[in-house]
Amino acid sequence: MPRYKLLIEYDGSDFVGWQRQDNGISVQQALEDAVHAFAGERTAVFGAGRTDAGVHALGQVGHVDLTRAFDAATVRDALNFHLKPRPIAVIEASLVEPDFHARFSARERGYLYRITNRRARTAVDAGRTWWVPVPLDAAAMHVAAQTLVGHHDFTTFRAALCQARSPVKTLKSLDVERNGDEIKIAARARSFLHHQVRSMVGTLKLVGEGKRTADDVRAALDARDRTKAGPTAPASGLYLMEVLY
Amino acid sequence: MPRYKLLIEYDGSDFVGWQRQDNGISVQQALEDAVHAFAGERTAVFGAGRTDAGVHALGQVGHVDLTRAFDAATVRDALNFHLKPRPIAVIEASLVEPDFHARFSARERGYLYRITNRRARTAVDAGRTWWVPVPLDAAAMHVAAQTLVGHHDFTTFRAALCQARSPVKTLKSLDVERNGDEIKIAARARSFLHHQVRSMVGTLKLVGEGKRTADDVRAALDARDRTKAGPTAPASGLYLMEVLY
Repeated sequence: MPRYKLLIEYDGSDFVGWQRQDNGISVQQALEDAVHAFAGERTAVFGAGRTDAGVHALGQVGHVDLTRAFDAATVRDALNFHLKPRPIAVIEASLVEPDFHARFSARERGYLYRITNRRARTAVDAGRTWWVPVPLDAAAMHVAAQTLVGHHDFTTFRAALCQARSPVKTLKSLDVERNGDEIKIAARARSFLHHQVRSMVGTLKLVGEGKRTADDVRAALDARDRTKAGPTAPASGLYLMEVLY
Repeated sequence: MPRYKLLIEYDGSDFVGWQRQDNGISVQQALEDAVHAFAGERTAVFGAGRTDAGVHALGQVGHVDLTRAFDAATVRDALNFHLKPRPIAVIEASLVEPDFHARFSARERGYLYRITNRRARTAVDAGRTWWVPVPLDAAAMHVAAQTLVGHHDFTTFRAALCQARSPVKTLKSLDVERNGDEIKIAARARSFLHHQVRSMVGTLKLVGEGKRTADDVRAALDARDRTKAGPTAPASGLYLMEVLY
């Protein structure tokens, strides 16, 4: 049974997230419906990152098994045809070995968080960034971010509903950079806890406002206590950019 | 009577364009309604570029006269409050001399045209770029673009409805650059004819496909004949980026 790897882009605004839910349409369901419309089979599409409602992806990776063998370009084009007019696109499809697993074979995930930092609301980027009208010190945020890099117990930055077996993760990098009115926060790790990036961003935003110091962030991490994190940043600013295998 | 210069951003998708029209809401009308709601007066907002329906702006400039004097930051914040929830934002407001005119004082305008060049439809950037699925040679497009730079009669690249007195314009630069799946075309001039950028882009796209050469583009320019231009590129890929005074 041939297995296909899919590189997937989506605007998460109108979805309940990657994973199937009872309360609306998920990205996974939209893809599985497209597979059914194209290949006539009801089969699961597995994803590398179970992004939340409102979270976007430029480089989500999924895999699917089909009974019949198709040319990979046909799989890509047919899925895109049946995904219309939803804001989901299969950028690439490729035939992979049967032991490839989009989620379990991944060795690194890259997320980007976008903040628009200016007095005026977002217009062109509405729903695609977090609008923060108070001035943020991006350099201070970057310094504080470095206290989170490395192998730690990230209980402080974990959602109550997180299903991971262990809160211990290795954060490979967390870089904060300003470019005009936009602040970009790039996070890389083998894997993340549920809400980890948004919770770290929400905490760094307090540093940017001058309400917390880098030492406070380190102390919050060490406390292993969810009440020590800042408010979770909104989903609209988060992008799953890349999954490495 | 104090005059305010406004730096304006908008997503043009749901507007009939900058200028007031009978068939829907324009950016100008939305701004004038916000001025009325804030300052209680019905007065015109003049814009540097009369962008068409669907064209976006990250750096449109307008001006407005108000009877009462307000702090410029108050003008910005109040307009943004009354513009909600429309995708228009006043990024900056500043008090200017009474002889400043958003349109007539402008000495340079910068436009950007974005093409997504890949097999898969756009998802996150739907409505914000021109999706071209056939591979384009951006380097060839850049070479051909250089034949249009300079002082020329641009009749070939002018809309039938163009109201400019003369078709002669000086195109300061026209640069085509590929970055992954995205091709960016940046155009700068003191002013442009109606549809000029979209018409030049539509012609360069034929060069990217190998259907026209740089010599063909030069011959089309020299012909001063609208039927020699390629199909006008869609509005969704065009952004008014900057106006210099």
